[in-house]
Amino acid sequence: MESVGIDVTLLSVGADLPYFTGYEARPSERLTVLVVPVGGDPILFVPLLEAPGTENVPFEVKTWSEVEDPVGLASSVVSSPGRVAVGDHMWSVFLTRFQRHWGHARWIPASDLTGKLRIRKEPGEIELLRRAAHGVDRIMGRMQVDVPFSGRVEREVARDLAELTIGEGHESAEFTIVASGPNGASPHHHPGDRVIEEGDLVVCDFGGRLNGYYSDSTRTFVVGEPSEEQREVHEVVLAANVAGRNAVTPGVTCEAIDQAARSVIDDAGFGDYFVHRTGHGIGLEVHEHPYIVGGNELPLDPGMTFSVEPGIYLPGQFGVRIEDIVVCTGDGVESLNDSDRALVSVS
Amino acid sequence: MESVGIDVTLLSVGADLPYFTGYEARPSERLTVLVVPVGGDPILFVPLLEAPGTENVPFEVKTWSEVEDPVGLASSVVSSPGRVAVGDHMWSVFLTRFQRHWGHARWIPASDLTGKLRIRKEPGEIELLRRAAHGVDRIMGRMQVDVPFSGRVEREVARDLAELTIGEGHESAEFTIVASGPNGASPHHHPGDRVIEEGDLVVCDFGGRLNGYYSDSTRTFVVGEPSEEQREVHEVVLAANVAGRNAVTPGVTCEAIDQAARSVIDDAGFGDYFVHRTGHGIGLEVHEHPYIVGGNELPLDPGMTFSVEPGIYLPGQFGVRIEDIVVCTGDGVESLNDSDRALVSVS
Repeated sequence: MESVGIDVTLLSVGADLPYFTGYEARPSERLTVLVVPVGGDPILFVPLLEAPGTENVPFEVKTWSEVEDPVGLASSVVSSPGRVAVGDHMWSVFLTRFQRHWGHARWIPASDLTGKLRIRKEPGEIELLRRAAHGVDRIMGRMQVDVPFSGRVEREVARDLAELTIGEGHESAEFTIVASGPNGASPHHHPGDRVIEEGDLVVCDFGGRLNGYYSDSTRTFVVGEPSEEQREVHEVVLAANVAGRNAVTPGVTCEAIDQAARSVIDDAGFGDYFVHRTGHGIGLEVHEHPYIVGGNELPLDPGMTFSVEPGIYLPGQFGVRIEDIVVCTGDGVESLNDSDRALVSVS
Repeated sequence: MESVGIDVTLLSVGADLPYFTGYEARPSERLTVLVVPVGGDPILFVPLLEAPGTENVPFEVKTWSEVEDPVGLASSVVSSPGRVAVGDHMWSVFLTRFQRHWGHARWIPASDLTGKLRIRKEPGEIELLRRAAHGVDRIMGRMQVDVPFSGRVEREVARDLAELTIGEGHESAEFTIVASGPNGASPHHHPGDRVIEEGDLVVCDFGGRLNGYYSDSTRTFVVGEPSEEQREVHEVVLAANVAGRNAVTPGVTCEAIDQAARSVIDDAGFGDYFVHRTGHGIGLEVHEHPYIVGGNELPLDPGMTFSVEPGIYLPGQFGVRIEDIVVCTGDGVESLNDSDRALVSVS
């Protein structure tokens, strides 16, 4: 903070607070905030009724009662700071109230500081990401055997995947995309009441949290036998996934990884149908830095972990996405996911 | 907006956006924002990959691609606004970027405007809250029969309650507090590995979302037979719950409802152990205005819906909370929850 001229940092909801303290703030109209003055001791302000959960917090904890103003209390720790770093996910309703107390401050996102630390994972963090990834891989392997598709609605299959995710030991199943047939052309489709039919491609993209770290993998299955066009599009996406992963090595930029995957799809004539970036960092958040996207000139460093997830989305027809979490190693890449990437047939 | 001097309103994540438009923004590093200029047409900015979900949005939708800057695009709709209302839950990382574009603006929470509309529920909204409440009531009724407590860990019982909540037709089980024995003294206890024993009180506080509206109810059960002290404390909390609910009628202030419940607990000598407000509004959010708390001089109006949930928390011993969702009617109160409030014995 001193070297970049920050007088105080405010951390509330989001992953920065548990990263540094082990304590996670509840998203709530009752403010929890860690005030970190440069050169001073941090103080955690929590609502009185949350006090029982703070026994292990390794610094001063101050509670505020229901009739007190937590922003007034927290802002009184520092008078007239010049530059304040504020946690990216803090609710605006709290930020605007802090701004009334500290009228002359300049405000920057805390991720400008914390991102530099969190972006390179330590070996212990990579091991936790590996365990979470392997859990999802096992589920992908079981889908041929244990999960019926044909004749069921997407929502039912999604519930199966969520249950399997919990059954594999995850603390939570955070998201479960099951996008069948034409719904597969919507990358973030909410599983609904469409009945899955013979011949459908089904994009299955799911993950959750295990010991605080996230899993996130996508495979595209076919119910029965694929058409020629489905097979061809799947092959292009798989080639893009392989090209993206193989390009990962220290010093290569994020946008070069994006370009490595994207150019395969462009060259096959499907460039207009790859409507999103190639990937996102992953760790204590399911989406975090580094983003594998055009314009991001950040060079990869060992310990960076992120997804490689090219896709092709043909409106009204179908979609294909193949997603792996990878880690940039000292001399190349390790894919934490390794379930079958072929166009596996399900029933 | 015109009458309160707001030049533009920005709505992103949170309940205001679906309340006005039917469209809900995904909490994400990819910004979704509705820009509402005073006297102009609203524009919804969404990430390109979310476009397939916006077919039913009844006004202009603009997509931004992965290599564009959504804040730059959205802020160009209005030049140099003087006062901006911003959705309470918008992430700070976006707000600080809007503030760089609109350097001279004053910023107020959108809830200063939207809260006045959302705080009084229409009959259709009350019916949805009633349905959600009745779903949770049915589960409370089944707990004596279908859910074993003794010898199981809290986490298992919590999973049962979550499954029953989904089984009753809720879209999601948002929270499931199962706090047994001394854990009951922590109002927001996370269900953990404590084995529930004969003679424990167990605070069960759970709810979820049904057609967009929330349920939230608490009952405290006893495993087997209660001790004299447990029975006494439960009676005090029940009397406070009844007093709080009976005080509800148009024109009475929120703080008077809090005081009606609190004075019962104070008079019984447990005032220091009722460590939270008496209640919170509920609707499209599980916690919203009006808050039933000391200092809130807002008078109740017909259509306001909120919880009445007094509790007593004895550190190291046990806790009791009894929570109902109520609606202020034209001449009094209706309790949307109505499951047995006695100290019901479970096995």
